[in-house]
Amino acid sequence: ADLALYVTGGRGRVAFVHEERLVERQLRDGDVYAIAAGIPFYILNTDDSRRLFIHCLLRTQCSTTGLYESFYVVGGRNPQNVLSQFSEDVLQAAFNSSKAVLDPMLVSGFNRGAIITVSREQMERLSRGRIKGFGGSEEPQPFNLLYRNPDFSNNNGEIFTADAADHRVLRRLNVGVQLLNLKPRSMTAPHYDTRSTRIGIVRNGRGILELVRPQEQEQQQQQQGPTYQKLRANLNPGTVFLTRPGYPSTVIASGNEALQILYFDINSQGNRRQFLAGRSNVLRYLP
Amino acid sequence: ADLALYVTGGRGRVAFVHEERLVERQLRDGDVYAIAAGIPFYILNTDDSRRLFIHCLLRTQCSTTGLYESFYVVGGRNPQNVLSQFSEDVLQAAFNSSKAVLDPMLVSGFNRGAIITVSREQMERLSRGRIKGFGGSEEPQPFNLLYRNPDFSNNNGEIFTADAADHRVLRRLNVGVQLLNLKPRSMTAPHYDTRSTRIGIVRNGRGILELVRPQEQEQQQQQQGPTYQKLRANLNPGTVFLTRPGYPSTVIASGNEALQILYFDINSQGNRRQFLAGRSNVLRYLP
Amino acid sequence: ADLALYVTGGRGRVAFVHEERLVERQLRDGDVYAIAAGIPFYILNTDDSRRLFIHCLLRTQCSTTGLYESFYVVGGRNPQNVLSQFSEDVLQAAFNSSKAVLDPMLVSGFNRGAIITVSREQMERLSRGRIKGFGGSEEPQPFNLLYRNPDFSNNNGEIFTADAADHRVLRRLNVGVQLLNLKPRSMTAPHYDTRSTRIGIVRNGRGILELVRPQEQEQQQQQQGPTYQKLRANLNPGTVFLTRPGYPSTVIASGNEALQILYFDINSQGNRRQFLAGRSNVLRYLP
Repeated sequence: ADLALYVTGGRGRVAFVHEERLVERQLRDGDVYAIAAGIPFYILNTDDSRRLFIHCLLRTQCSTTGLYESFYVVGGRNPQNVLSQFSEDVLQAAFNSSKAVLDPMLVSGFNRGAIITVSREQMERLSRGRIKGFGGSEEPQPFNLLYRNPDFSNNNGEIFTADAADHRVLRRLNVGVQLLNLKPRSMTAPHYDTRSTRIGIVRNGRGILELVRPQEQEQQQQQQGPTYQKLRANLNPGTVFLTRPGYPSTVIASGNEALQILYFDINSQGNRRQFLAGRSNVLRYLP
Repeated sequence: ADLALYVTGGRGRVAFVHEERLVERQLRDGDVYAIAAGIPFYILNTDDSRRLFIHCLLRTQCSTTGLYESFYVVGGRNPQNVLSQFSEDVLQAAFNSSKAVLDPMLVSGFNRGAIITVSREQMERLSRGRIKGFGGSEEPQPFNLLYRNPDFSNNNGEIFTADAADHRVLRRLNVGVQLLNLKPRSMTAPHYDTRSTRIGIVRNGRGILELVRPQEQEQQQQQQGPTYQKLRANLNPGTVFLTRPGYPSTVIASGNEALQILYFDINSQGNRRQFLAGRSNVLRYLP
Repeated sequence: ADLALYVTGGRGRVAFVHEERLVERQLRDGDVYAIAAGIPFYILNTDDSRRLFIHCLLRTQCSTTGLYESFYVVGGRNPQNVLSQFSEDVLQAAFNSSKAVLDPMLVSGFNRGAIITVSREQMERLSRGRIKGFGGSEEPQPFNLLYRNPDFSNNNGEIFTADAADHRVLRRLNVGVQLLNLKPRSMTAPHYDTRSTRIGIVRNGRGILELVRPQEQEQQQQQQGPTYQKLRANLNPGTVFLTRPGYPSTVIASGNEALQILYFDINSQGNRRQFLAGRSNVLRYLP
């Protein structure tokens, strides 16, 4: 799957193979990055004390099965290394060595899941790796959503946006990323997106989501015109929600602290956000 | 849904919100126009005595549900206004006013369907609206299919075509529009389209559609090569029909008056029309 | 369907109608060519003694039914001519002649299938046809995969590749073509493609395909990380196999003669081939 990532805490490094080089990029809070499907990569937490938090969007459109399928090219018992599945004769011929020689490489400490602790020696080896692959300078740097002026800001909050126009890695995926900071007792003006499907992830604070969607109708009712249905849901840290193109919605910071939501905007190309209240309200231009 | 429209009678106005302006375009018989999904718009019949007739094509490819979903941002009991579905506390906060104040805006006379009569005062208000939104000059003008030379013309009839090459609004939708005028007792040469699916709408006259399609086959029969099936149908004003890419068809004006058909050509980009008889007959170039 | 073809033996000619001309291109062993959906064409074996062998890929993405549907614009009882399905009155009007006059054209000797023997006289008529349609010079020439330096070559074999960058006809279809020659007792390094689905057709020799694919898992197992499954299959002349993006695989020439495989790479645009062993091994760049 194509992968878009957003760092929400900690410090680390992402490394991936690009045109026979290992390309490394530093990651810090607010960084947006993307890695194309099939590119081998790893992520390293380089901070001694803090956890590294990353939100990922996986787009499976390039998968012929439509499923998310992950392949570990380095691994052991858990996760399995894809290479270890080949027959012993294939491996011996491919690596020109006996399976016994391969074993250490195939295991690499991966026995209890895809996340492992890296020793100081391994860390040094990774650093040497970085020096070896000093190239890849044409690959983009991460784009930081926080170290720039917000796209919108007033007494009630601020919005930071990164889309195809800002960053090549997002254009490839047709995805935008947005961060909303809403002060307590504030709300966004009711709005909808013309083309994007949005996935929202609540990072901090508590709030309310209100969304209006079309109501399914019987044939006879359709002559009465469309009717709509309201959905109201509580937002807590970790809540994930989705809004479809055309469906109006609003979020309200109902707690005592700011409400912070990270959005992935899928199919963001050509999308417009239409507000139904406030200064940019489309209703102002209608009779 | 993305919308392509063709005016077949009367006079009016289409108005839509584009980059915080209300853009208005005059509509008259033969005009082709398109409005992208999610753009709020209204259509006004400005003629005192005549009806305004418009044929619309709705492309739902940007809808994640695959359904056509319409949203009324101004409305009342029927159609419902999407805004009216939000909770009263949301609306009061959004509009900084009590629901009572909102009521007139929410109702606006929409109680018996999406089409309403506009009083002289409301018409004036709409005109003021137009002055306010004097911009949008970069948005294209409607394209008139009739006020130009036909793409094809002889004693038997004429064809007017508008596609991506002619008009930006059609390129966005990958749709072409075509008008066929066929004199009584005339027919089109049997032909097929290489990539377009065509939707035909009979506007005037009577005729016959003949179409050849592949016949489904049992496994054993397939060794005998493909076989085909003829469909023959009467065409009357209002008849709608569809032809798939590759399926040869012809229409015949069988009545005493001209047969006029409006076509929407879906996926018109890269399409070629191949004739199986007549001067441009592909068979002339085959052994 | 859009068609990509690769000539694997013999000599011949492909002729198709392009902008009211008959365009002809010579075909010989190793030639790659493509014909867009809906373009009438025929293929002629011009060699007196040898068979003409062609491998074809049919892409049905432009078909609204998703099925491969073939239409014969010249034909008789088998295959049927699509034209012959129209009503007699339609045909008489279209061709301005009685059905009796049409009969010879409609039959043309096609009674026992889509492949017929062409007499010396008919061959001459086809040659005259070629002179008539001397144009189409802007249409590309076939691209020969063999009369160029291999993209990769060493003691174990060689690889010839043609993709969008090489040839306009392949860019249209988003398809690449590749020919692999593997010496006896040689193997390809285990590898996967990031975006392409590959269809392999064994032309000569015997071998083994080994492929690793993800194993479907129960919910509970998923917490254990992904597991994989090996597929091992014998390759013989005529064997057709498919590899999905991301699935690592290798082929081994296990017989006494070279193993030759023709590949069609579907969705080749933006694809990268990642090797898991050998000089370009992505593992070299990982810790």
